[in-house]
Amino acid sequence: MKIFVRFFPLLLVFCILGCSSVDTPAHILHSPAKFTTIEFALDEHGVPVYTVFFKGDTIIRPSQMQFEFKDQPAMRGNMKVVDGSIERVEDNWEMPWGEKRYVENIYNEMVLDLMERQSPRRSFSIHFRAYDDGVAFRYQFNDQRLVDSVIILEERTDFNLKGDHTVWWIPGDWDIYEHLYSTTLFSEIDATTKRDHPNLAATFIPYNAVNTPVTMKTENGLYLSFHEANLTDYAGMTLAVDTSGMAMHSLLVGSDRLGYKVKRALPFYTPWRTIQISKTAAGLIESDLIVNLNEPSKVDDISWFVPKKYMGIWWEMHLDISSWDLASGRHGATTDNAMNFIDFASANNITGLLVEGWNTGWERWIGFDDREGVFDFITPYPDYDLSRVVAYGKDKGVELIMHHETSAAPRTYDQQIDTAFALMQSLGIHSVKTGYVGKIIPKGEYHHGQWMVNHYRRVLDKGLQYNIAINAHEPIKATGLRRTYPNAISREGLRGQEFNAWASDGGNPPEHLPIVVFTRMLAGPIDFTPGVFDISLKQKPDNKVNTTIAHQLALYVVINSPIQMACDLVENYEGHPAFQFIRDVGVTWDDTRVLGGEVGDYVIIARQERETGAWFVGGITDEEERSVRVHFDFLPVSRSYNAVIYRDGDEAHYRDNPTDYTIENTVVDSQSERDFVMRPGGGFAISLNPVSK
Amino acid sequence: MKIFVRFFPLLLVFCILGCSSVDTPAHILHSPAKFTTIEFALDEHGVPVYTVFFKGDTIIRPSQMQFEFKDQPAMRGNMKVVDGSIERVEDNWEMPWGEKRYVENIYNEMVLDLMERQSPRRSFSIHFRAYDDGVAFRYQFNDQRLVDSVIILEERTDFNLKGDHTVWWIPGDWDIYEHLYSTTLFSEIDATTKRDHPNLAATFIPYNAVNTPVTMKTENGLYLSFHEANLTDYAGMTLAVDTSGMAMHSLLVGSDRLGYKVKRALPFYTPWRTIQISKTAAGLIESDLIVNLNEPSKVDDISWFVPKKYMGIWWEMHLDISSWDLASGRHGATTDNAMNFIDFASANNITGLLVEGWNTGWERWIGFDDREGVFDFITPYPDYDLSRVVAYGKDKGVELIMHHETSAAPRTYDQQIDTAFALMQSLGIHSVKTGYVGKIIPKGEYHHGQWMVNHYRRVLDKGLQYNIAINAHEPIKATGLRRTYPNAISREGLRGQEFNAWASDGGNPPEHLPIVVFTRMLAGPIDFTPGVFDISLKQKPDNKVNTTIAHQLALYVVINSPIQMACDLVENYEGHPAFQFIRDVGVTWDDTRVLGGEVGDYVIIARQERETGAWFVGGITDEEERSVRVHFDFLPVSRSYNAVIYRDGDEAHYRDNPTDYTIENTVVDSQSERDFVMRPGGGFAISLNPVSK
Repeated sequence: MKIFVRFFPLLLVFCILGCSSVDTPAHILHSPAKFTTIEFALDEHGVPVYTVFFKGDTIIRPSQMQFEFKDQPAMRGNMKVVDGSIERVEDNWEMPWGEKRYVENIYNEMVLDLMERQSPRRSFSIHFRAYDDGVAFRYQFNDQRLVDSVIILEERTDFNLKGDHTVWWIPGDWDIYEHLYSTTLFSEIDATTKRDHPNLAATFIPYNAVNTPVTMKTENGLYLSFHEANLTDYAGMTLAVDTSGMAMHSLLVGSDRLGYKVKRALPFYTPWRTIQISKTAAGLIESDLIVNLNEPSKVDDISWFVPKKYMGIWWEMHLDISSWDLASGRHGATTDNAMNFIDFASANNITGLLVEGWNTGWERWIGFDDREGVFDFITPYPDYDLSRVVAYGKDKGVELIMHHETSAAPRTYDQQIDTAFALMQSLGIHSVKTGYVGKIIPKGEYHHGQWMVNHYRRVLDKGLQYNIAINAHEPIKATGLRRTYPNAISREGLRGQEFNAWASDGGNPPEHLPIVVFTRMLAGPIDFTPGVFDISLKQKPDNKVNTTIAHQLALYVVINSPIQMACDLVENYEGHPAFQFIRDVGVTWDDTRVLGGEVGDYVIIARQERETGAWFVGGITDEEERSVRVHFDFLPVSRSYNAVIYRDGDEAHYRDNPTDYTIENTVVDSQSERDFVMRPGGGFAISLNPVSK
Repeated sequence: MKIFVRFFPLLLVFCILGCSSVDTPAHILHSPAKFTTIEFALDEHGVPVYTVFFKGDTIIRPSQMQFEFKDQPAMRGNMKVVDGSIERVEDNWEMPWGEKRYVENIYNEMVLDLMERQSPRRSFSIHFRAYDDGVAFRYQFNDQRLVDSVIILEERTDFNLKGDHTVWWIPGDWDIYEHLYSTTLFSEIDATTKRDHPNLAATFIPYNAVNTPVTMKTENGLYLSFHEANLTDYAGMTLAVDTSGMAMHSLLVGSDRLGYKVKRALPFYTPWRTIQISKTAAGLIESDLIVNLNEPSKVDDISWFVPKKYMGIWWEMHLDISSWDLASGRHGATTDNAMNFIDFASANNITGLLVEGWNTGWERWIGFDDREGVFDFITPYPDYDLSRVVAYGKDKGVELIMHHETSAAPRTYDQQIDTAFALMQSLGIHSVKTGYVGKIIPKGEYHHGQWMVNHYRRVLDKGLQYNIAINAHEPIKATGLRRTYPNAISREGLRGQEFNAWASDGGNPPEHLPIVVFTRMLAGPIDFTPGVFDISLKQKPDNKVNTTIAHQLALYVVINSPIQMACDLVENYEGHPAFQFIRDVGVTWDDTRVLGGEVGDYVIIARQERETGAWFVGGITDEEERSVRVHFDFLPVSRSYNAVIYRDGDEAHYRDNPTDYTIENTVVDSQSERDFVMRPGGGFAISLNPVSK
């Protein structure tokens, strides 16, 4: 397929009558197939107001756009449109890895240049993009006379909803996204009740706001998801909730230390504010809106990173079998342990190994205030022979995934990063899992503020310099930057598998992933670390995983990430024929089809592996049993496929019979259809390999 | 469990009246529980005659025992009983590996000393053993005045049957056992029609006779199997068939070269002639009669051999992908190929690798008359680095299984064997697959004659000297010698898997193994080389395997052998979750229970693995679909087991859907029962691991 970009100038349409309730002529932007429409106007006070429609229905009621600054008056109105343009773009770009190979980027864009009618006559522009599956807009702050930078105290972009939608939300925490999703009516959102979760090392929820992506279902059955794209040198946006007015507005993450939210030199763009709109929940996942709103890749050659499955010295620590630190007397990251993992990984088509707790300093992290300078990221504990493990792995085709826990002391990491990445480069290690556990040092900064956004970006830039891919935990949220920085391979930024090992609230409920795929996963790849087979966690009698084994398998397809962990202990995989699925499943895809789903209920995804032409299907359900019919019409019509089906046993149940599964080996083609029963907390996974001719 | 042997002298009973139809007082021997009875008498001509009863029913009508000699008159009667004794033996011995750990050996033995009433007044003795599951007897030739050896032209032991039983038989071939079993009435046995099978490199069927074990079912539903035990320095026995008289008699394999059948120095014992008797087909398999009739182990320490699963450079040759010889241009036994197999084996709990065609000489074997001195068993082909492969395997926990194809030139092998075994010993190789393909050199000898029996025995003795275990192909049949020579680990001696790859008669039918387990397997361990997953044999469009994959898996439990091959190509295992069963299944057992079966129809066997306490169950059927119920009451009552069930898919069929299988993961205990549908040519396999507490 040829990659092409085409630009078509379009006529800018002024709507004179009946378009909306605002008082000046409206500027109308339709998406290419006219599914979505954005209407822009200025209200009677000259305040910019936008409205969004989907196939004729109002999605966003007229909503204002305003900014508050330090040292200069707020921009709250009195504006005029001084110029405008519309163009049509048809673009087609290639992902180095990911959920599909070629991405179509087709939209109409309207740029409106605005200026205050009176002094100080500041100007700015708004870029609107209308896609058939959503809309986006961003602000462009142009050079201002006598001012070379601005300090933003708040961006006030309103999102006035059309009704009391059902919302899947996490609180607008400035430090962490690792909350369980709540499902409530919009009018019932109460984010501040989520404060002080006992299992979060850092959490700050100042307002009744939500983090994005936040997904909603309207009374008419439409699906909406609000987020931002290309979060660059700006504060992360939460959405404050007005539960009586059915309205949201942007509320940027701040810095108590600096007293503002964003400081930028002029000119600059804000991130895109995005609204995905779909008639089906599946459509949200199939949309490429977020990545499309980012810039093309900064690098031509990313071949030094290879998508992979990996294992790790990690889950055993969450199970309290071993520990990160040496002083505990049960240090997990030993040379022998790593070599044992390498042996098993190498034997099982798994080409990566994460080793946590390998470097000195773990005696002084969580619980200590002064964490600057503790980790140096280059000095192994004496029982861990880093170069020997690297060499042993290389010999067996298993590459180490480096681990850099910053303990939320980013200035230390900034100081050490060249040394640390140079060591990795010298060892031929091409990826790192970074961690930012705890409250940010310096005090007053938050994980999601501009200062940290810029830190996370510096790490990506350093990664490109040293050929290192980044898998950040406790990260800033994904906003599609993986298009620009393909080394942003995956990240955490959600409540992961490890909560099942120790959370005092009963662990992740069965609905967790059926919500996550329609919320967090819209932002980008997730390092969720699936694959627990010892569901009952024999080492942790008070904890368990609330899914079946078949559900765990399905996650390798359902979750999009070019790195996927097989997180359980070697001993828990041995003897399990179901482990064959983990051996076989791909991690990067030519194509993705969402075969069905409802937010928080279930999802079924089919993905075609690159190179091999194999297809894989994953289906998961929440706590309800569901019977679903899969049509294999996504397969090419001309050939038969060996299908290995991994499904819940007839009596499987996440609560008391989670390891009951059934595997079937059969043949299907594009004419086949088949019913699958997903038991409570269950699912199914299928591998499909072309029958050799 | 303590090993013990107890001997109890018993009263010798003379039956005066009504015991049988013979004319002299009969000597009666009952088995310990009086299930079997042997009656011995001399008929009116002084000919020894025995009769066998099972729970009151006649099994063997009065049958004569006679010998013909060279250079001295036949012993055809005119005998008298000069002495006799009976004793009770309770013995308990331990198998180093095998179908169970401790073997009970409980029987009553009667020894009768006979002498001719007239000159030359030769004496001999008959030893009768009555077990509850069968009877056996052997002849003892004592020192004779003025004669230090005898030349036997024929042993004429009759087995006069009680009716026209259903018989599962192969022809009494003097060179090979690799015939398909026929199922006929006794009166319909026509072994000579089996002559000149196009797929046998050597075959000689001089008479209408059958090879043993030969198994029968009587009109009353009793199961009989005739065989011999401890075949030492004697010719193999076929059983000639009198289809009108419903009678069989021993017919020894001869030597055209020497003109006799057996030559022995005095004194000596013949092999045991054995008749297993059971009310169920299952009982035949559970019987230890054959091994019990052999002497205790010649060695105390056999720890140098470890039971193992193995792979091999072997099946690819039968599929014509590669060849044994270098001149073909597609030599299979290359260093790289061996190392690839080692990689896969090592990764999959398989600890042995057979490499055929590794040594020079394969350009001159089948089809050449002069095969003496061709193979030297020490010189590798130039593209095979033997010591490198050995070292690579050792590093990965995979030991080579040496291959010595003698091409039926045993004198060459006798000359080379010390050098060959010394090389193996120096390399740390502890087992060899020997082969005897073709007509025996020198001409006039047959595989099953005394001369070859003694050759095969010398190889076993050499094996003990060099710590080498023997897996003979084209062997002499097993007669329980593995008790005495534990290094006789397994053997071929039946129509194996390879016939499926090229036999012009359609391959082994689905009933093949359901017959073999009740016939050939009663003799001892079988190297059948199960595990074909590419059932349709894509490289051989005219051939296929006539079973399902589930049937292939079940064979690892059904077939008894301390070595079991996973015979298929690596590429055919990849991606198959069913391969987990091969990874997991044991090869040596604490206990064996035959849960059900009918000869030629189906069989279900449960075996408990040594050390681990895991149980495995295998069930196979013939071309008929069968539903069977398994009661898990063989499990200990106190614990639960994780059960992984590998069964035919609902639509599986050996003919057109053989790879359709289903795997279930569940939990069972001793109270559980479950129905299994075995589809045509199908089966099921179960692994059962104790749930960790």
